[in-house]
Amino acid sequence: MSTPPKAWNTLQANRAARVGRARAAVGADLDGKSVPAARINDLLHSVIECGDRVCLEGNNQKQADFLAKALAGLDPARVNGIHMLQSVLALPEHLDVFERGIASRLDFSFSGPQAGRVARLVASGQLNIGAIHTYLELFSRYFIDLAPRVCLVAAEAADRHGNLYTGPNTEDTPAIVEATAFKNGVVIVQVNRIMDVLPRVDIPGDWVDFVIRSPAPYYIEPLFTRDPALISEIQVLMAMMAIKGIYAEYGVQRLNHGIGFDTAAIELLLPTYAESLGLKGKICRHWALNPHPTLIPAIEAGFVETVHSFGSELGMEEYIRARPDVFAVGPDGSMRSNRAMSQAAGHYACDMFIGSTLQIDLQGNSSTATAGRIAGFGGAPNMGADARGRRHASPAWLKAGRQAREGRNTIPRGQKLVVQIVETFREHMQPAFVDRLDAWTLAEQAGFDIPPVMIYGDDITHILTEEGIANLLLCRTDEEREQAIRGVAGYTPVGMARDKRMVENLRDRGIVQRAEDIAVDKRLATRDLLAAKNMKDLVRASGGLYAPPRRFRNW
Amino acid sequence: MSTPPKAWNTLQANRAARVGRARAAVGADLDGKSVPAARINDLLHSVIECGDRVCLEGNNQKQADFLAKALAGLDPARVNGIHMLQSVLALPEHLDVFERGIASRLDFSFSGPQAGRVARLVASGQLNIGAIHTYLELFSRYFIDLAPRVCLVAAEAADRHGNLYTGPNTEDTPAIVEATAFKNGVVIVQVNRIMDVLPRVDIPGDWVDFVIRSPAPYYIEPLFTRDPALISEIQVLMAMMAIKGIYAEYGVQRLNHGIGFDTAAIELLLPTYAESLGLKGKICRHWALNPHPTLIPAIEAGFVETVHSFGSELGMEEYIRARPDVFAVGPDGSMRSNRAMSQAAGHYACDMFIGSTLQIDLQGNSSTATAGRIAGFGGAPNMGADARGRRHASPAWLKAGRQAREGRNTIPRGQKLVVQIVETFREHMQPAFVDRLDAWTLAEQAGFDIPPVMIYGDDITHILTEEGIANLLLCRTDEEREQAIRGVAGYTPVGMARDKRMVENLRDRGIVQRAEDIAVDKRLATRDLLAAKNMKDLVRASGGLYAPPRRFRNW
Repeated sequence: MSTPPKAWNTLQANRAARVGRARAAVGADLDGKSVPAARINDLLHSVIECGDRVCLEGNNQKQADFLAKALAGLDPARVNGIHMLQSVLALPEHLDVFERGIASRLDFSFSGPQAGRVARLVASGQLNIGAIHTYLELFSRYFIDLAPRVCLVAAEAADRHGNLYTGPNTEDTPAIVEATAFKNGVVIVQVNRIMDVLPRVDIPGDWVDFVIRSPAPYYIEPLFTRDPALISEIQVLMAMMAIKGIYAEYGVQRLNHGIGFDTAAIELLLPTYAESLGLKGKICRHWALNPHPTLIPAIEAGFVETVHSFGSELGMEEYIRARPDVFAVGPDGSMRSNRAMSQAAGHYACDMFIGSTLQIDLQGNSSTATAGRIAGFGGAPNMGADARGRRHASPAWLKAGRQAREGRNTIPRGQKLVVQIVETFREHMQPAFVDRLDAWTLAEQAGFDIPPVMIYGDDITHILTEEGIANLLLCRTDEEREQAIRGVAGYTPVGMARDKRMVENLRDRGIVQRAEDIAVDKRLATRDLLAAKNMKDLVRASGGLYAPPRRFRNW
Repeated sequence: MSTPPKAWNTLQANRAARVGRARAAVGADLDGKSVPAARINDLLHSVIECGDRVCLEGNNQKQADFLAKALAGLDPARVNGIHMLQSVLALPEHLDVFERGIASRLDFSFSGPQAGRVARLVASGQLNIGAIHTYLELFSRYFIDLAPRVCLVAAEAADRHGNLYTGPNTEDTPAIVEATAFKNGVVIVQVNRIMDVLPRVDIPGDWVDFVIRSPAPYYIEPLFTRDPALISEIQVLMAMMAIKGIYAEYGVQRLNHGIGFDTAAIELLLPTYAESLGLKGKICRHWALNPHPTLIPAIEAGFVETVHSFGSELGMEEYIRARPDVFAVGPDGSMRSNRAMSQAAGHYACDMFIGSTLQIDLQGNSSTATAGRIAGFGGAPNMGADARGRRHASPAWLKAGRQAREGRNTIPRGQKLVVQIVETFREHMQPAFVDRLDAWTLAEQAGFDIPPVMIYGDDITHILTEEGIANLLLCRTDEEREQAIRGVAGYTPVGMARDKRMVENLRDRGIVQRAEDIAVDKRLATRDLLAAKNMKDLVRASGGLYAPPRRFRNW
């Protein structure tokens, strides 16, 4: 009995069949690539097959929203069992595809705004989660075991050959399109405009199958804009401690900041407090960071030499164009962001990550998961993990590594600084320090293999609260670590249960440091220290180049 | 006193000046981009400035050799103090630039063939090493603090607009060019051909400044080709233990193999030994791997579903073209490799790395550094490190994580399998197990901050020798770990000094496993088990599609 010869080009043949069906169904001009927006339903019905892995571009900023809506509007009798691949679930349509029975499985990174609805769909069995990833990890799997059959992405403009201009918000697009096009998948793009000549080409036209000019520009969220008017004096105090007790202490030159007011306060204290400490040129020179508006005063003051960005930020376009020495600006004068490369850089080329969290347990594990909400991680775990594959040295990395290994019989190694900055109580007087993370409950509810921890305790080097800094690098036992954490947990139950004698001993050893221990003068901790006190100040600092979105203007 | 306004576009202005000088010096056609090979000296003299960071494309395979030679031939009186950025130092010209005083500083990843000469130039003060990196880490720094002012890269072909076709050997080129072009650096490319229409576009023309058709095609090294005729029966035995004791034990589906005969033997045992164990479809389905010729029989047998590659391999082009379901093949039918994305995938999307080393110490730290040779790391530390930022689960990753944490009061977490496979004695009867790594001596000689360790002991999960498997995940103390290592170190001095009683105890607990403990029948460990016994067998297995380079043919 002979078996028929194995076919090795099933993906190619299947791709040709899909494209052929689509051409027959909708026609297409521009080298056969352009499809009218009105025919999107027919295009998707002819291209997508049941059970497909479909990657929809949607991250914490840029949304292929026209395509998302079209996908959610397909006929579930014709298209179902779709396995969605997606960085971020942000729009209602991202969940509608599950509710309507078009999609059934999901691999993703983050679902902030839709976290509650994700949890409900999981509970009802309409949504089956493959896994929660970080961005770079999800992109990585697109190249290994989760290659999309179809991707739906967004670009600023296309030309008649299908070349794409993604401009400042390049973000996830190159990684998604490369993984799809080079595994014989079908690439479908919504664009805001069709142009004769693009400002530059971000993605070559021969990687692209279909281009649709969407009726409205793709949606973009100004997620990294923080109004300085909302920064509290507690946050100013914490920022002072961060700068003096950590940034200056380790000489941190390459770093990433998480999102939020705590780190925005640090950015706004660089030209004032850090400058007064003589730290210009000594800290914060190179960044993997989105173009935070609150970074403008530090850039103007000459603190910041370079910024490479995951994505852009609405309103910052003209400022970036006028500061090409700082940002990654192309020959055309506009920025190119690249989430994959910036995440790699955040992991491997930065000495520090500092960000906030919702809960920290007694081992230092931190999580943003709360019961009833499956929110995911985004990029924090990638940035907030010791990069154990890193081999190049820097003073900050060497010092952290030395502190972690002092007195231990182990080969020398550097270590990344991973700082969690939190107030002891968050909104509604919820303590940030807990005996047990809500992540455990969530894991039980959702049937996860392990609790969704954002940053593990053994990757965290410092916890900073308004009560002080706990340097976990210097702790030598689990008990010391626990007491160091309790020591900065203030009046939370976790903090109240501390062993006072042991915490004082840790303080003597520099493991717990109060503001006064590092000569941070609390009387200076006022909003006067902020280099910009409101949005208007940021605009002014930018020389009028920064144009905040309307919702941030009150003038 | 007023200070003059700060200039924010110095890089743009400087770039324009360089390009202007070059155009004036050499002229240029093809939209002003093409420069005759005979004018390369003038081009580089007019573009490169003293002290520049210059990134020269050269990795373990593909070499921008025409540009490397031209750079080494510049006038050191006119161009000097160059800071070279380079993945791999492979060609004599890569060191000539230092010897001739054109370059003085180096940031790199690997220098295998030139390691001795690097060490001598460091000792003489002609070469100052910034740091040794892994590939992805070096690319990451190009986006953060080491943006090239000029990059010199290689492509297969260019069209008249400067669009580049890099084809199967895309490798480092996209990362280097993106980092340079979007920081207003100058991009210079040597190409084998100028074509009217490229098979596909890999890099958009507007990221490229100058194109030179080189007199000869760029050099490429078939580094990943291993002749099965040179595989020993000891290596067959070790491969059997790897498959049964580790691959099957953990159900490893996504993985990366290091380079060498040890892992080539495993590849050649998949269709024979692994098949006989019923493992098809259960292990080794998805790979981050160059197209190893020794993987052909496993591909043909249906073991391998997908392969994403860092680079290509000479002679594999037609085979890859005929197996598009397996490899990352573009619409044009040829592969696109991508070192940055494949390294990210090796780190984040793979459950296992297995590779060889030269030395292992009693803590499990391993290194390929030997005194007098500054060789660097390549990609092994990135692949061979626990990816602590990873959050998606798989059975292999969960099991490794459970074993590492059993009986410990710590939050559950997965872990990457990192296996070192070595014979107890390497060439010239040098023991692979040592009390102290040569890396210490090298660090002292070269003035490194810390010894250049390839993989740290606390990232290694298993050590496999002809004596057995040491499962370090299950060790609970430093002493257990040391004895587990001694227990597989055979007749080396390290092995002879083992505590026999303790090793037997570890064996009872499954921490040390001999071949017989996992029912590996040593009598089967003959070359008959190899799916291909020589190069001709590989060609035959490929249906005549694989065309080995001449040096591997003896027929």
